Amino acid sequence: MNVVGNAVLIVVDIQGGDVEENASRTEIPHMPGRAERIPKVRELIQRTREQGIPVVWIQEVHKPNLIDIGRELDGAEGPHCVEGWPETEISKGLDPRPEEFLIRKRRYSAFFGTELDIVLRAYKTETVILIGGLTDVCVHYTAVDAHQHDYRIRVVTDCVGGSSREAHDAALRAVHYLQRDALVEQAEMLNWLDTASANPEVTRADRTHPAFQPT
Amino acid sequence: MNVVGNAVLIVVDIQGGDVEENASRTEIPHMPGRAERIPKVRELIQRTREQGIPVVWIQEVHKPNLIDIGRELDGAEGPHCVEGWPETEISKGLDPRPEEFLIRKRRYSAFFGTELDIVLRAYKTETVILIGGLTDVCVHYTAVDAHQHDYRIRVVTDCVGGSSREAHDAALRAVHYLQRDALVEQAEMLNWLDTASANPEVTRADRTHPAFQPT
Amino acid sequence: MNVVGNAVLIVVDIQGGDVEENASRTEIPHMPGRAERIPKVRELIQRTREQGIPVVWIQEVHKPNLIDIGRELDGAEGPHCVEGWPETEISKGLDPRPEEFLIRKRRYSAFFGTELDIVLRAYKTETVILIGGLTDVCVHYTAVDAHQHDYRIRVVTDCVGGSSREAHDAALRAVHYLQRDALVEQAEMLNWLDTASANPEVTRADRTHPAFQPT
Amino acid sequence: MNVVGNAVLIVVDIQGGDVEENASRTEIPHMPGRAERIPKVRELIQRTREQGIPVVWIQEVHKPNLIDIGRELDGAEGPHCVEGWPETEISKGLDPRPEEFLIRKRRYSAFFGTELDIVLRAYKTETVILIGGLTDVCVHYTAVDAHQHDYRIRVVTDCVGGSSREAHDAALRAVHYLQRDALVEQAEMLNWLDTASANPEVTRADRTHPAFQPT
Repeated sequence: MNVVGNAVLIVVDIQGGDVEENASRTEIPHMPGRAERIPKVRELIQRTREQGIPVVWIQEVHKPNLIDIGRELDGAEGPHCVEGWPETEISKGLDPRPEEFLIRKRRYSAFFGTELDIVLRAYKTETVILIGGLTDVCVHYTAVDAHQHDYRIRVVTDCVGGSSREAHDAALRAVHYLQRDALVEQAEMLNWLDTASANPEVTRADRTHPAFQPT
Repeated sequence: MNVVGNAVLIVVDIQGGDVEENASRTEIPHMPGRAERIPKVRELIQRTREQGIPVVWIQEVHKPNLIDIGRELDGAEGPHCVEGWPETEISKGLDPRPEEFLIRKRRYSAFFGTELDIVLRAYKTETVILIGGLTDVCVHYTAVDAHQHDYRIRVVTDCVGGSSREAHDAALRAVHYLQRDALVEQAEMLNWLDTASANPEVTRADRTHPAFQPT
Repeated sequence: MNVVGNAVLIVVDIQGGDVEENASRTEIPHMPGRAERIPKVRELIQRTREQGIPVVWIQEVHKPNLIDIGRELDGAEGPHCVEGWPETEISKGLDPRPEEFLIRKRRYSAFFGTELDIVLRAYKTETVILIGGLTDVCVHYTAVDAHQHDYRIRVVTDCVGGSSREAHDAALRAVHYLQRDALVEQAEMLNWLDTASANPEVTRADRTHPAFQPT
Repeated sequence: MNVVGNAVLIVVDIQGGDVEENASRTEIPHMPGRAERIPKVRELIQRTREQGIPVVWIQEVHKPNLIDIGRELDGAEGPHCVEGWPETEISKGLDPRPEEFLIRKRRYSAFFGTELDIVLRAYKTETVILIGGLTDVCVHYTAVDAHQHDYRIRVVTDCVGGSSREAHDAALRAVHYLQRDALVEQAEMLNWLDTASANPEVTRADRTHPAFQPT
């Protein structure tokens, strides 16, 4: 698998905190298989960090009175991602580090109303690697915006889950329409990581401004 | 059919000028049925204008050396929408009027790098009606951005065409996931237009600044 | 003073936590007078809340290695607003409430790479009231973007501070060039607040989704 | 003078067509000196082209009924830049070439609601050179947005004009606050151009897609 230029791994909306899936109040349909995907996700994030490739976290949030939810209740989804709910936190065991960007969003695309493009430019990113969910909503529309911002996209097909199996498959076909090399599997990513270089912009920044510590 | 608030009809990428489809150098796959859709499109535009509802035209364009085409050649499409090609013009017989906005875009979503949101705000738009193509690319991603900008969306299912029948169907399902009332047919739109009111912002603007004429 | 439509108070970058000004590591020039402004700011925020007008908080943040600081070190400013520094927190005694939006930004304009416009649309805002600093940088450029997004702007001249007195004055003149009614004093705002109505969108949202509580 | 990376010259709102200044219906205040600036502007554009550095043209436009003018009449300016008026055209003798981008805007910043950032990315731009007007409005706010997009900025101080001499001077000081190397004179630019290299992205694009000709 070829990854061109600096890559960044974007973890899209893997939320739920330590709340069991069947106890979550977040009303979003999803296809089965989450339990199988989580270890692959965790391994991919760990190996990405070990190679010095930046990880960026996306977290959808809305105010408890949902004043900021826009039209997101006009379709298939009910209330979701409420600030203060434990199930809105990043999933247990996937802990963003202080030096990693944790970007809150209020719409589906991780580019919409967020600093994501600022961050990707800071890393002089050429390729974005996408994992998380939903394949057919937040992953798909983040991939589209990445494409429109001229980034190469890689969606890790066994590390994303859709609102249904059919919607998942259709979204992957749509992403493949945009970029014919966009669909990859986790095993291919691990192979690529074996020899991937650390992000030079992080190295440069760390050297220029050696991590101020909170006092 | 219910349309809430001020509506605007957005005509997405109905281009080709007076060039026969099989003679066009624009390399974009498409499903059959264009000949059947065009009269419906024309009728819908005409009735929309007669009722005083604004029509906004979207036209994709790229420089002849394609320097601005971004990643649009990385997938299923070849060169397309070249400035100066007659097949890049709005399709013959669909003539934007001087008072209508003709918005050029260089990516798929009609919101991306354009004044579309400025224009929709000017009309105090609440609902956008989408026709044109491709259902699964420019129409889909324009609908997503309209959704994220809090507009209600109406995609006229028999006035849009996809890169394939399957992709067209999948995109309509994705739009329906976003807004359960989003899919309508042209006949329903015509019924609604029978009693629709003219856009009050146009009336107000025309009264305030009575159309300066070019000298 | 006339305020048209729904108003929102935007508090721009009033940061410093509980760190004394002369102990702060944030290297940004500023004109004198902060001690006099703070009580006025506090009073204005309190009265705004009492009337049910939304308050939105803006906080500039950068990673400790400043990888995301862009070109902000190319001019008059040194390192500033580092995540984890106490002096990056909102100033002591000005505590955002859970129902108020606290928007982090990484550039000067509060619209740039943030959800501010999403939030202002949620409140169906027509007028934005600006306080904080710097008058000639973050306040000025937030005012410009508000203007370009079609909002009416009110800058409270005795509740903003600049990088120098001259720069403060010049920025206020520039804002007045954009909107001739833009400059107001805190006393005028208080008078207006005496009879201002609560934001109807908050009332509606609270009634529709009565505040979910964290469990 | 040092220019870092690929540069692009942006010509901001040098409009007026072949209409004499005192006959123009565009109601925008301006400082004197336009007649002296125009030959310098023309020379700079010519030399920029000769060296193979891209020129991008910005043109403000509004519909005759000014429905899209937003809040631009709330301040010091009257109606301006009306589509169809000869005085809205680029000034006589400054003729954009077909291969140059001519970007229409409906607000003050050339980035707001336009494809400018798409175009600058296409050229892999690192430095933007700004000429035109008004120094304190469209040039200033375009410079700010360029700064926020991480571009290095160079404002050619004797090729820009403000709404008044005072406002012009204040805007240049504000730009200098952002980037201490931002202010340059036309003569320095000409010296730099003597040895500047052609934009490699144009060369690459021309070789990849040798200019399709209109048929």
